[in-house]
Parts: sequence; C-alpha cells; structure tokens
Amino acid sequence: MMVESPPLAMTMGDPAGIGPELALAAWRLRAAGDPPFFVLAAPAHLAEVARRIRSPTPIVETDFERAASVIDRGLPVVPLNNAVAAEPGRPNAANAAATIESIERAVLAVRAGTARAVVTNPIAKTTLYESGFRFPGHTEYLGELAGAWGGRHFPVMMIWSEALAVVPVTIHIALSEAPKALTRELIVETGRVVDRDLRARFHLPRPRLAIAGLNPHAGEGGAMGREEITIIAPAIGALRAEGIDVIGPLPADTMFHAGARARYDVALTMYHDQGLIPAKTLAFDEGVNVTLGLPFVRTSPDHGTAFDIAGRGVANPASLMAALRLADRLTQ
Amino acid sequence: MMVESPPLAMTMGDPAGIGPELALAAWRLRAAGDPPFFVLAAPAHLAEVARRIRSPTPIVETDFERAASVIDRGLPVVPLNNAVAAEPGRPNAANAAATIESIERAVLAVRAGTARAVVTNPIAKTTLYESGFRFPGHTEYLGELAGAWGGRHFPVMMIWSEALAVVPVTIHIALSEAPKALTRELIVETGRVVDRDLRARFHLPRPRLAIAGLNPHAGEGGAMGREEITIIAPAIGALRAEGIDVIGPLPADTMFHAGARARYDVALTMYHDQGLIPAKTLAFDEGVNVTLGLPFVRTSPDHGTAFDIAGRGVANPASLMAALRLADRLTQ
Repeated sequence: MMVESPPLAMTMGDPAGIGPELALAAWRLRAAGDPPFFVLAAPAHLAEVARRIRSPTPIVETDFERAASVIDRGLPVVPLNNAVAAEPGRPNAANAAATIESIERAVLAVRAGTARAVVTNPIAKTTLYESGFRFPGHTEYLGELAGAWGGRHFPVMMIWSEALAVVPVTIHIALSEAPKALTRELIVETGRVVDRDLRARFHLPRPRLAIAGLNPHAGEGGAMGREEITIIAPAIGALRAEGIDVIGPLPADTMFHAGARARYDVALTMYHDQGLIPAKTLAFDEGVNVTLGLPFVRTSPDHGTAFDIAGRGVANPASLMAALRLADRLTQ
Repeated sequence: MMVESPPLAMTMGDPAGIGPELALAAWRLRAAGDPPFFVLAAPAHLAEVARRIRSPTPIVETDFERAASVIDRGLPVVPLNNAVAAEPGRPNAANAAATIESIERAVLAVRAGTARAVVTNPIAKTTLYESGFRFPGHTEYLGELAGAWGGRHFPVMMIWSEALAVVPVTIHIALSEAPKALTRELIVETGRVVDRDLRARFHLPRPRLAIAGLNPHAGEGGAMGREEITIIAPAIGALRAEGIDVIGPLPADTMFHAGARARYDVALTMYHDQGLIPAKTLAFDEGVNVTLGLPFVRTSPDHGTAFDIAGRGVANPASLMAALRLADRLTQ
C-alpha cells in the first residue's frame, strides 16, 4: 500500500498583502506532480479576495488530516481561530494575531507529522511590531519555534534558484554596520550550517562553498580594506580544518557569471546586497528564500507583501510556486 | 572625396600583462566594419609575444598619419622612445617609462587630431608606483593629461555593455570607507557628468539615470541606514532641479533584472561592487570601461593585466574588441 506523504503547510502571511491572492494562484496554476498543500487562513477572507481579483477559486475548508485528499476539489484551507478582516493594501495590526497563529500552527503541524514543511507568505514586520511581536523577522521567530525540537538552532537565510544559491552572512543592517558585524565566528558558524544542510536537505555529498571578500577586488592584498586578511581568510581556514570544501575570499564582482558559478554550489556573501544583487539579477521571479539551520524545512517567496499591488490580481505567483516545489524537493 | 577619419590609438598597457597579446588578437579577429587602430608599443616586443603564443601576426611599424592605411597588411605599431624588455607574467618597473609614454602619446595624438580616441590596455598600478608614478590609476592620469585642453575635468568611470551601464560613485576604497566618502556633492557632480556625456557621446536626447540606495532595501525608510534620507534623496532632488531625469534611491537588489533595466539608461551605484557585480554577472566578457568627463573619448577592457595567464595565448580579447567598437561608436 502506498502511504501518502503529508501535504505542505502554507501560511497566510499579511492578509492585506499579496499572500492570499498568490495562494489562490498557486492552487489554480498547479501542475501534475506539484506537491499537495493547504493554507492556514480564514476561508471567508480568501473567498473575498478571489471575488475581488475576479479569479473564481473553489475553497475547501478542511483540517490537517484531510487537506491532501481534497486538493483536487479546491484550495484546502485550515481555518484560523483568530479573526481576519483585511482590506488589500491596508495593513492592520488587528490581523497580527491571525498572522502569527498561521505561522505557529504551520510549524506545529510539521512537528506533529501532519505537514511536511512550512511555506510562508510575506509578513509586514512593522504591523506585527505594533501588536507586540518581538522578533526582528520571520526567520528569528521560526528559530524560536524550533525550540520545541530541543537543542540550539542557528537559522540561516539562503536565497535559492536553479541559477544561483547565496547566503548573506550579515543581512538586514545598514551597510556601514556590516563591516563591524562581520566576525570570523559568524562566518564559520554560517558555513557549518550551510555545509550541513546542503548535505542533509539538498543531498549534496560534498557541498562546495565559495566565500566572497568584503571589499572591492577582495581587498587586493590589503590595499583596499583588511577584513579579508584579518577575518575572512582565517574563517575559511577554520572551515577547511573541519573538512568543509571552501574557496575564497573571492572578488565579489567576478564570482557570479556563469563560468564562475560552475565552481561552487553556494556563495556566502558578506552583506545583503552583495548576494541579493546577483540572486535577483539572475532569477528575479523564481528565487526562493529557504531557511537553513532549522529542524524543519521552511521556504518562502523572496519578495515582500507588495501592499502597493495587493488586491489587483497582478502579483506574480512564480516565487511562491517555486517555494512550494523546493519545499517538496527538500523533504523527499 | 571621402575623408577618412583618423584611427583609434591603443596603448600597450603593462608589457608583461595580457595587453600585447590582446592587441595582436584584436587585429587578427577584426571584422569588416571594425575601426582602424594602431598600438603605441615596441614592435620587436610585440613580434616576440606573437612568436611565444604561436599566433603569427604581421606587424607594421608606422606613424600616426599612415597607421590607418597599413592596417590590412598587419598590426600598425607606432614605436615608443622608451625601451621595453618584458617577460610575460613578470611585471618590471623598468618598463614603467614606456607604459606611461604610450598613454601620454595616445592622448597627445587625439589632441593633435591624428587619432580619434584612446583605447587603453591594462596597467599594474604597483609597478608604476615603484617608478614614481603618482596617480591612483589610469583614470586620474587621464584627467591630468586632459589639462592640455584647458578647463576643469571630473573623470567618471562607467562600465558599459549592451545589457547594462553602471557608474560607481565611490570606487576603489574599502567598503567601510564608502559610506563616509559618499556625499551629496559627489553624487550630484557625478550625475551631471553622466547626463552630459550620455547626451554628447551616446547621443541620448534625455538620458534616464537610476540611482541606487546605499543600504539594504534602500534603507527601508531609515530602518537600516539613513544615507538615503540625508544624502542620496537630496542629491536626486538637486539633479532633478537641473532638469536631469533621475529615479531613486532604488533598492539595489531589485534594480538590475531585465524588467528593471528597461526603465533607465545608466545606473549610478554608491560603491564598487554594487555596480560591478551586476555588470560582470550580466556581461563578463564584453564589458567596457569608458571614462566620462574627459575632453576626449577613452575606453578600456574592464579586466586587469592578468599576469597569471599572460604569454599563454589564452586571454579573451572580447572586452578589448568591445572597447575598440565602443570608442568608434562614441566618436562618430
């Protein structure tokens, strides 16, 4: 007897953003072989969004256990306990409880074995902060929820596409703060998580890591900055001593063309735009944000709530659909 | 009677680098319609390089006036007064005088009307410094030579390809220095030169400039750095007040995919890698370095001396050939 594997758990995201309409589109556009999934959301709200964007989409209220079996009839929605009353493009702190409930219950479903992985829709941090949410973002909150598995977790953001995978070592801080935040330990810890999860989740027997320099031309021997000498090269040495396959520090401008990319599986960059510029230049619509270092698989589209276009039915579901497919692949 | 326009003046670059073999390749591979050019170099040295890389190339010793008329017979070489004795891959300060003479006489030839534009091969700054050269690089030396035309010049480096043109506002400094070096005046002065030369040289009636933010997500309203608010937006305001078409500050990671690039002619980036990463990711072999703000046209390949592969005949002449073609186009 064939045992069906559990579906993927998709979160609602900010209900005033493009998440709800992307969830509807992901169901309408799914192809044979695409993984079953359900959304943790408010069925009436999703139905209203479907009407507004004039994309009739059957919605099936269900529960974790039955979600996979109803997906051919409509978008399976597991209802939230907290209320949702959202106007597209108008974020409202009143929806924060439902937004957070959706994330928390998706993770609990994976922990309980009724979902295989978590696929999150975009949230708006400022709206959540207004309601008392105390985490800098999605990733940190997921790290907290991972505490249920026991042990210590170090969540690492990777932006993945078929063309390029990048991991920024420092992320959402001012550029002037990045050189100060960069430490040997941070690079080493990040490199370890990347190596481990590329083996465990991506099934690469020996992941090849490429580490960027911080400065132009990777500092050109100390002529334009010394972090390559004092921080990055020692971190590379420490990772190699642990048996990890690492090259670098590489000049960042010459490490992302096709020939250079063939030499590694993932690039570790020293700051946000150093990795996100090539990632979004090469794969703007299909990039997936995947969190490494967690005891469960979590993927997400690599864009935000896009309040400016929410409710118009013009948002591109390609990244969310790529996130579903990657979550499926990483849990095979 | 048809008056032939003068040829392009190509410099030797560091004779121990890949410049000489690229010059030979540019002659061998030139196609119908490619512009005539000559090299300011040592004929015997070029002949030796041709033998070493086993690419027989006839070399015709000539002068500025006759260079264009001999190009079908062989690579026209205008001999230098200073001696050249170079071993590929082994930079030697003894060649600095000849390297500098080649640049200076190329500029003088343009000033005298016997050449149309300057196309420079890569130099090694450290080798020139050893011999007392006091300019940070090519661009600044060309700015000095531009003094012969009178007036004040503000040389601006642009990396150009059919896919993308970028101008980094700060360039060869440590990343931690870039936020400190960034001023409203520097952005405004750079923007003015870019606007003026895109009209004068590229014949764009109304160039569209896009200016990147410095911080991730262009600072997200000040949450991750305030330079967008205090420096970049005011610079954009000042440029607009002068009638220049400018958008920004744009989040750097989402401004270089194809759809975003269609909205502007040139991107001004706040630091080296912010512009050079997308430029070299999109056009690794065909990028051209063009100096704006000079009273003459100067282009160059966007790579260095590549001492590690010099003398082996494997260097790719695509960027030098693109530099010749762009110099030709900009002087039509």
